[in-house]
Amino acid sequence: MIARRPSARVVSGRQRVVIEGITPLVDGGRYPIKRVVGEVVVVEADCFADGHDVLSCMLQYRHAEDGKWSEVAMRELGNDRWIASFAVERIGEWRYCVTAWVDQLQSWAHDFERRVDPEDLLVAAKSGADLIAGAAARAPTKEERKNLETWARSLREASADQVKQIAHDDALLALAVRYAARTGAVRTSLDLRIIVDRERARFSTWYEMFPRSASDTSGTHGTFDDVRKRLDYVSGMGFDVLYLPPIHPIGRIRRKGKNNAVTGTTEDPGSPWAIGAEEGGHKDVLAALGTLDDFKSLVEDARAHRIEIALDIAFQCAPDHPYVAAHPQWFRWRPDGTVQYAENPPKKYQDIYPLNFESDDWSALWDELRSVFEFWIDAGVRIFRVDNPHTKPFRFWEWVIAEIKREFPDALFLAEAFTRPKVMHRLAKLGFTQSYTYFTWRNTKEELIEYFTELAQDPSREYFRPNCWPNTPDILAVSLRNAGAPAFRLRLLLAATLAANYGIYGPAFELLENAPRDDVSEEYLNSEKYEIRHWDLSRPDSLAPFISSVNAIRHANAALQSDWSLIFHTVDNSELLCYSKRVADNCIVVVANLDTRYAQSGWVTLDLDALDLASGTPYEMHDLLSGARYQWHGMRNFVRLDPALTPAHIFRVLGEPRPAAATSLTV
Amino acid sequence: MIARRPSARVVSGRQRVVIEGITPLVDGGRYPIKRVVGEVVVVEADCFADGHDVLSCMLQYRHAEDGKWSEVAMRELGNDRWIASFAVERIGEWRYCVTAWVDQLQSWAHDFERRVDPEDLLVAAKSGADLIAGAAARAPTKEERKNLETWARSLREASADQVKQIAHDDALLALAVRYAARTGAVRTSLDLRIIVDRERARFSTWYEMFPRSASDTSGTHGTFDDVRKRLDYVSGMGFDVLYLPPIHPIGRIRRKGKNNAVTGTTEDPGSPWAIGAEEGGHKDVLAALGTLDDFKSLVEDARAHRIEIALDIAFQCAPDHPYVAAHPQWFRWRPDGTVQYAENPPKKYQDIYPLNFESDDWSALWDELRSVFEFWIDAGVRIFRVDNPHTKPFRFWEWVIAEIKREFPDALFLAEAFTRPKVMHRLAKLGFTQSYTYFTWRNTKEELIEYFTELAQDPSREYFRPNCWPNTPDILAVSLRNAGAPAFRLRLLLAATLAANYGIYGPAFELLENAPRDDVSEEYLNSEKYEIRHWDLSRPDSLAPFISSVNAIRHANAALQSDWSLIFHTVDNSELLCYSKRVADNCIVVVANLDTRYAQSGWVTLDLDALDLASGTPYEMHDLLSGARYQWHGMRNFVRLDPALTPAHIFRVLGEPRPAAATSLTV
Repeated sequence: MIARRPSARVVSGRQRVVIEGITPLVDGGRYPIKRVVGEVVVVEADCFADGHDVLSCMLQYRHAEDGKWSEVAMRELGNDRWIASFAVERIGEWRYCVTAWVDQLQSWAHDFERRVDPEDLLVAAKSGADLIAGAAARAPTKEERKNLETWARSLREASADQVKQIAHDDALLALAVRYAARTGAVRTSLDLRIIVDRERARFSTWYEMFPRSASDTSGTHGTFDDVRKRLDYVSGMGFDVLYLPPIHPIGRIRRKGKNNAVTGTTEDPGSPWAIGAEEGGHKDVLAALGTLDDFKSLVEDARAHRIEIALDIAFQCAPDHPYVAAHPQWFRWRPDGTVQYAENPPKKYQDIYPLNFESDDWSALWDELRSVFEFWIDAGVRIFRVDNPHTKPFRFWEWVIAEIKREFPDALFLAEAFTRPKVMHRLAKLGFTQSYTYFTWRNTKEELIEYFTELAQDPSREYFRPNCWPNTPDILAVSLRNAGAPAFRLRLLLAATLAANYGIYGPAFELLENAPRDDVSEEYLNSEKYEIRHWDLSRPDSLAPFISSVNAIRHANAALQSDWSLIFHTVDNSELLCYSKRVADNCIVVVANLDTRYAQSGWVTLDLDALDLASGTPYEMHDLLSGARYQWHGMRNFVRLDPALTPAHIFRVLGEPRPAAATSLTV
Repeated sequence: MIARRPSARVVSGRQRVVIEGITPLVDGGRYPIKRVVGEVVVVEADCFADGHDVLSCMLQYRHAEDGKWSEVAMRELGNDRWIASFAVERIGEWRYCVTAWVDQLQSWAHDFERRVDPEDLLVAAKSGADLIAGAAARAPTKEERKNLETWARSLREASADQVKQIAHDDALLALAVRYAARTGAVRTSLDLRIIVDRERARFSTWYEMFPRSASDTSGTHGTFDDVRKRLDYVSGMGFDVLYLPPIHPIGRIRRKGKNNAVTGTTEDPGSPWAIGAEEGGHKDVLAALGTLDDFKSLVEDARAHRIEIALDIAFQCAPDHPYVAAHPQWFRWRPDGTVQYAENPPKKYQDIYPLNFESDDWSALWDELRSVFEFWIDAGVRIFRVDNPHTKPFRFWEWVIAEIKREFPDALFLAEAFTRPKVMHRLAKLGFTQSYTYFTWRNTKEELIEYFTELAQDPSREYFRPNCWPNTPDILAVSLRNAGAPAFRLRLLLAATLAANYGIYGPAFELLENAPRDDVSEEYLNSEKYEIRHWDLSRPDSLAPFISSVNAIRHANAALQSDWSLIFHTVDNSELLCYSKRVADNCIVVVANLDTRYAQSGWVTLDLDALDLASGTPYEMHDLLSGARYQWHGMRNFVRLDPALTPAHIFRVLGEPRPAAATSLTV
């Protein structure tokens, strides 16, 4: 069925079944779909043959490490569409395919029921008896064999008035079908792939911080030990991934100063992304932060706090990175004998040398970069936030992620590619577990509905897992620029409830850092990228308590731990946004006020069918943020939200489900 | 890009470009698209690389018999989408693919324009000079070489204030780009195919008739010579394909009688689809019709009338077909030692034996069936209407059509598969040139709009070419059942103007044959399938003059000779249907009254932009059926149609086009 042109004469001319239109399918099977462990894969396919015979279709699946396929019978949905599903119970790579054949026994039974001519019945009974006897010969137990043989004999010996009654035996037919020959079976030519990750791939709560700003003492360079002391604080807010910008030696040559000044002083700590200096590169630790062992202790302590340390992988070098001298062929050289620094004319980034992936020595470069991941995996890291993957070749990422995941299927990769949609999608297809999104720039009701409907419902959800950030060290979003607590609360709440994966860059976020460097850029004033900051975590206006509440709600409600169930509901106010997520009996409805200055009110129209709520019965809306409980009736209900008090209701819906027959399939 | 998983390490790690999302593309490239000679193929693809370099993308194409590829540069549409087109100027199979690479010269030029630092400019100028010198070395003419070398030298020697001016030379840059190295070029892995047919594949007007009913003398078996005498009549009505039901010897065993009576008499001529008797089978001619030479003369005479003879290929046998004795293995045998006849329990068709494509001897069967096509091709036939292809294996059709078209690319195949949509689409994908459609059962405005929008706009139009029939010998459509001339006129006009390929079964059609065999079936009473009929072509109520008019309009108006430009326009009356087709400056608007009893009137709202009409200027609507000319103004205009007079206006639109800038792309 897929993009391989058969030489029709080589294959058997007797194979009559066609299998096409399989879903899910990414780029004709070129890329895998993604799931997390325990999830269900629902597969559909168009299966049909010439003529009017009855088909059997099997969905077959296996873990890549298992030799044996499991299978489940597909059922027909009508219009030649078949469906079946299976659960992926282990992490790693899985395979699935569809096999279908003309089922002679079922075709016989289907026709036999409709026959009326006595002579015809007796002849057809003999044909059926032959097929049943064939199945009997393949039956594994003596009893099954005997039952089928007896049935075949009865059919052969029956008189015309008895034979229809004898033939009509669903149990025996099912038994015979089970062992019937799969003559002429056709199998999809390509095994389709599934990358099955651990649950954190789908549901994770990220906190980014600069370790060098982690000291409680102002003016002191923070250390891994200081970060350890912050673990209670971070886990108290409900975060489970603590992501650190690069922790390696920082280049001294052309080191940048505060606010990205072209020439720094010797006092300046430099940008952590200007990786590498005399004392080491991507596999070394900046001495001021501590030792590799200190880092490993941090990883372990974090684990005790149910936090995973995520590292930043930025494949670029400061001019004094050891690679430059050891592997000059991995860099581009200019006609004046200098190395080509990063640039986007007229902008220059002279403290950064990009790697030249078009080098003749690309293969050794790939191996070395893979070894960087392996080094940190050895140190206990399993989550990598990859810096600007869209400026390195796609083929490299496809290869290196596959290499790492083959040995460490629990490794997760977040693509920091804030770029064009097709580039972001390609990176997701080729293996990145999660992707940064455009959420940071989606603010209006219309923008949010359009973008999150795409993320939750478009077929690209099979491979693109969003991770939504209100801010990053590179992006002081317009929504937060010179803004107050209501804007910060709103953006956090939207990220946390619209997306199962989200993160913030703190403590800048919870401490309401809102001053831009200038009028045009998205850079922070006094950005931590270029200097050490001291943060007063005890400030009374800190959003930490609010963040803790929201994250606790996420952890307690399965509906907020995945993305695909998201739907939007109508509100007759363009500043009020209403959406729901539902997993099994956990149903969450959020109504958010996008206006961070004024109270807004309006009538929400809930799609009760989609929420599986009986339309005639009142239901309780329990606001998990405020603790308030409301009694709602029917589809339309009134809401008023004051941004000074709260950005939103996060309702847990408690109501009577619709009658069972009307229940829609939840995947 | 297509369904083949690369071993990332084997390919070059330096290839940075991605090509995906190519259109047109049928099932990931598994099947060809279709065109007729002279048509344009517009290809789009997503092409992008990591980083921000400028790409070059080429659409490459060739006739399968040509070794050499032609190419045309693609231009970017935005959002990483590229487009280009080419015309297919010869029939046969064509190939197309996309090649793209990081264009170092254009990337250099793009960056150079933006550089400001003088030192930087001088270094970059040298990089550019190296690239230009490289292009010079590949330039084929001495002059081009010299021009490029001079340019490279000027760049090397220029001062900082001159260098930008020297670098900025679009003509020289274009020259250098033409000969630049395509380092790291990526090519789509699969050559995509196009089946290019002659024009009749897209535009054809079919007339079906039973030769045995062609005698002018009632009660006499018609002959090929009688059909020759009808050629003036058929070409006078504007038909260009004359399709004959099977012309072979008809089985005598279990021959059916009038109105499908189970037992015929020796007087009954039998069904032409019960093929084969003692005297011959699929490669023989029924003696009562004449000889093979008579048939060949008919083919030649028809050609002189600009009519092609199409034959019916029905791969099934009467019980006395010579195959049954010669190749018993090609049939299914029942336990009682008889051959399995066709059946759909409880219905039986004992005069027909289906072929058993699951036979061990399938390969010889395939060869024999191919030779049937070859036999009639030898006799001058190039158009085949294939009977019930959906009851024979898909693989067989894919193979046999490819085999025939390889040697006879002018051969055309019409699939008579009135069955489920996916089966019909598969047959079209695998090679059938045209397909019968559901038009026969689409009557209401809503049904017609939905179905013809699908036929004209769905991506399946790349392979599915509709051929619309108001009636066939098997189908007295509900719309014609006991109906009068208005219904016949309407259905013919709809078929003829909605579809570039259409046909009727005559003389039953033009002589308003409307009596059903019974209350439930679609069979005609006294169907020609089972008896010889005599038709009085001179009847005054014959629709022949009307049909001639409609077909003449089709032949004179390019817009009606293809399907893809079809769009529907709004009319505020559910019985009035308005649609247009447009090719270059030929624009046809049809307004049809679907009510065959009462006059209907309403306001038509034309989409003037889609028709490329200036909105401020009046335009002339010339009714090609009645000859009347109307002056229309703006979008909304009034129409009234009386079915007693005409089923429709067929307007040629004569107006001022919109200003050029707003002209939409016509493909």
